[in-house]
Amino acid sequence: MSGHAAGPDHPLERLVFFSDAVFAIAITLLIIEVHPPHLHAGSPWRDYVDALVALFPSFFGFFVSFFVIGAFWSGHHRAFALAGQYSERLVGPNLQMLCAIVFMPFATAFMSANLGALVPSLLYAGTLIATGLLNMRLVRVTTSAGIVRPDVPAIEIAYTRARGGAVVLGALLSIAVAFWVAPFSQMALLTIPLFQWLLRRRITRRFARTA
Amino acid sequence: MSGHAAGPDHPLERLVFFSDAVFAIAITLLIIEVHPPHLHAGSPWRDYVDALVALFPSFFGFFVSFFVIGAFWSGHHRAFALAGQYSERLVGPNLQMLCAIVFMPFATAFMSANLGALVPSLLYAGTLIATGLLNMRLVRVTTSAGIVRPDVPAIEIAYTRARGGAVVLGALLSIAVAFWVAPFSQMALLTIPLFQWLLRRRITRRFARTA
Amino acid sequence: MSGHAAGPDHPLERLVFFSDAVFAIAITLLIIEVHPPHLHAGSPWRDYVDALVALFPSFFGFFVSFFVIGAFWSGHHRAFALAGQYSERLVGPNLQMLCAIVFMPFATAFMSANLGALVPSLLYAGTLIATGLLNMRLVRVTTSAGIVRPDVPAIEIAYTRARGGAVVLGALLSIAVAFWVAPFSQMALLTIPLFQWLLRRRITRRFARTA
Amino acid sequence: MSGHAAGPDHPLERLVFFSDAVFAIAITLLIIEVHPPHLHAGSPWRDYVDALVALFPSFFGFFVSFFVIGAFWSGHHRAFALAGQYSERLVGPNLQMLCAIVFMPFATAFMSANLGALVPSLLYAGTLIATGLLNMRLVRVTTSAGIVRPDVPAIEIAYTRARGGAVVLGALLSIAVAFWVAPFSQMALLTIPLFQWLLRRRITRRFARTA
Repeated sequence: MSGHAAGPDHPLERLVFFSDAVFAIAITLLIIEVHPPHLHAGSPWRDYVDALVALFPSFFGFFVSFFVIGAFWSGHHRAFALAGQYSERLVGPNLQMLCAIVFMPFATAFMSANLGALVPSLLYAGTLIATGLLNMRLVRVTTSAGIVRPDVPAIEIAYTRARGGAVVLGALLSIAVAFWVAPFSQMALLTIPLFQWLLRRRITRRFARTA
Repeated sequence: MSGHAAGPDHPLERLVFFSDAVFAIAITLLIIEVHPPHLHAGSPWRDYVDALVALFPSFFGFFVSFFVIGAFWSGHHRAFALAGQYSERLVGPNLQMLCAIVFMPFATAFMSANLGALVPSLLYAGTLIATGLLNMRLVRVTTSAGIVRPDVPAIEIAYTRARGGAVVLGALLSIAVAFWVAPFSQMALLTIPLFQWLLRRRITRRFARTA
Repeated sequence: MSGHAAGPDHPLERLVFFSDAVFAIAITLLIIEVHPPHLHAGSPWRDYVDALVALFPSFFGFFVSFFVIGAFWSGHHRAFALAGQYSERLVGPNLQMLCAIVFMPFATAFMSANLGALVPSLLYAGTLIATGLLNMRLVRVTTSAGIVRPDVPAIEIAYTRARGGAVVLGALLSIAVAFWVAPFSQMALLTIPLFQWLLRRRITRRFARTA
Repeated sequence: MSGHAAGPDHPLERLVFFSDAVFAIAITLLIIEVHPPHLHAGSPWRDYVDALVALFPSFFGFFVSFFVIGAFWSGHHRAFALAGQYSERLVGPNLQMLCAIVFMPFATAFMSANLGALVPSLLYAGTLIATGLLNMRLVRVTTSAGIVRPDVPAIEIAYTRARGGAVVLGALLSIAVAFWVAPFSQMALLTIPLFQWLLRRRITRRFARTA
């Protein structure tokens, strides 16, 4: 343990745990924006069901954003598992990415409160694209020479970097859908795993060719 | 410490600390839903007491949900103490279970704001059942081959898995009670330790027979 | 690091970090209850000053509770630094103590919103006494045989246990003051360091006699 | 790992992680003060854009305070990376600094809600100066004999201490600007990196002379 404080990796661990706390708070704050309805005592049970149904946009926004932030956390987790060395170069890009994550509860609540409206859908998708791009930059730094563990194979670095691109592609598609049918724009995000699979396959092929 | 970042267990630790942060925030957010009453200066002390008494449903919901989330945290803690190896298979089930935990403050506030109403009681019990089932699945993955530490005895795995079932049984009983006397449905959760004891005894017997 | 997950102390570390997260959230939530005043654009600067002065009870409550929770965190930190072994016996008392900590932002806001009223002052002091007693029990478990590190000297255990008593004494004095001059009841908490010093001196003397 | 709990550095790690959690919550709470506008269904898209434009002061406050808290976290991170030994002397100054950090979301919201008003601008700059001074004291303790790792070169200690001074200088300039053109006072904070560079250069020269 005395090796911890003295060793070069301790600051890396702290950066990671700080990021985890920010991710955890942002993901949990999403539920604060869903306001529990308060009915008159003795209201018929149908009224309670109606009140919950009226909250559907908020529930929908909550669940989508929960898994979007979860996906970014998972990507962060994956990228930093490859890092072996702390560097000051990580601090700025990491903070900027976290700033976009922290903005997500606002973008989610704005969209849920105005479901189907164009501008909130665009702001949400725009936030996602910004987060995706900041994430791509962070992953690039995390997997750069001097930070990445020397034993990580090049193909794994390529996979990890490509993963970030899939979110940006999904969000761009979501913007296109927003102009066409705004209420369904968030559903375009479901294509993200598809893009991940496509990008992964491309890399596997590229490496197979060069090998 | 350089062994940390390079070793296979570091990502496991990060998954666990991220989960802890989410548990901690969800359990603390419960108090936000209890709104402190503001009385006119110079009100008689009886009015303050009445204001606190009127908050009883909120206090009740706060305390029950605090220990429900605490129990899930404790089960999570117990299950991951058996895990020795990180696997990507953990990420999805863990996030889904945390999503249900994060939903608990909403379900609690909805029930407290409408104490004794059927639909909020059902939503609360339903949230609990969902959390319980997602938790059971997560515990199953955590204690599956390739993740669980090889030295964990089979009976301890059986105990840990059974524990999750007790919450689901208590929540099912709570739903039955909700249809009969909704205001008391949450009290059925007090049977959870009883179910835990029964399931534990059954496993002890089963293992004693086969030994 | 593989020693971590397999070792007996890993669950202890997790218990401690979970507790730290709860402490950190409770201490930070205190500021949420201080609502920033919104004045008409162009209001004279005196109005802004007046608005801040009117918030004085909230500021006062915030600062006192910040250092009260900070003191409990510091005591928790000190008590667990003596623990060397995880035990399931820690989980219940720790959760119960955290529950009282999480309740503090409510008790603080209730008192700040009704500064000088008897009932809120009593609820605040009562919460403090409950937290203090639950803390004393937790410290007792933490420093009990089978959990405490075997190399911790008896006098340090006695000091750590006595420290918890000082908070309870300060809160009891605060209750007495509340009945007399409610607005100043919180100031009685400033005697806590004095009680700590007195209890510490008593222990030093007792050990000096027996040595 | 048994070396952890027994070793002298474990309490240091816990202090750091507790601080990280407080930083993370304070930085994330900033978004709570930005309230998502709710428009009538079917409002023209211009109305949504106007609603976002009206939120500009809140967005501005959010982004500035996010990076201000981020900068303090980064300084804390840097200072504690030099610490090798836990000491009780750290607890008080660390809690006091965190108290100022926790106050930042209030000061930010007060300024955003009254953009351009003198008193909120002064309160914000005053909070920043208080945080900066408390931070300087904490860094001084962290890098003092008995706590700092013995292998840290004197010049690095000097750099780390000087860094804290730059924030105070930037905040003082911000106060001067507040009296002149209040709406732009926060922009004076952009001079902080400049002050950091100036102070760093002075130290480099001083050490070059004495070497």
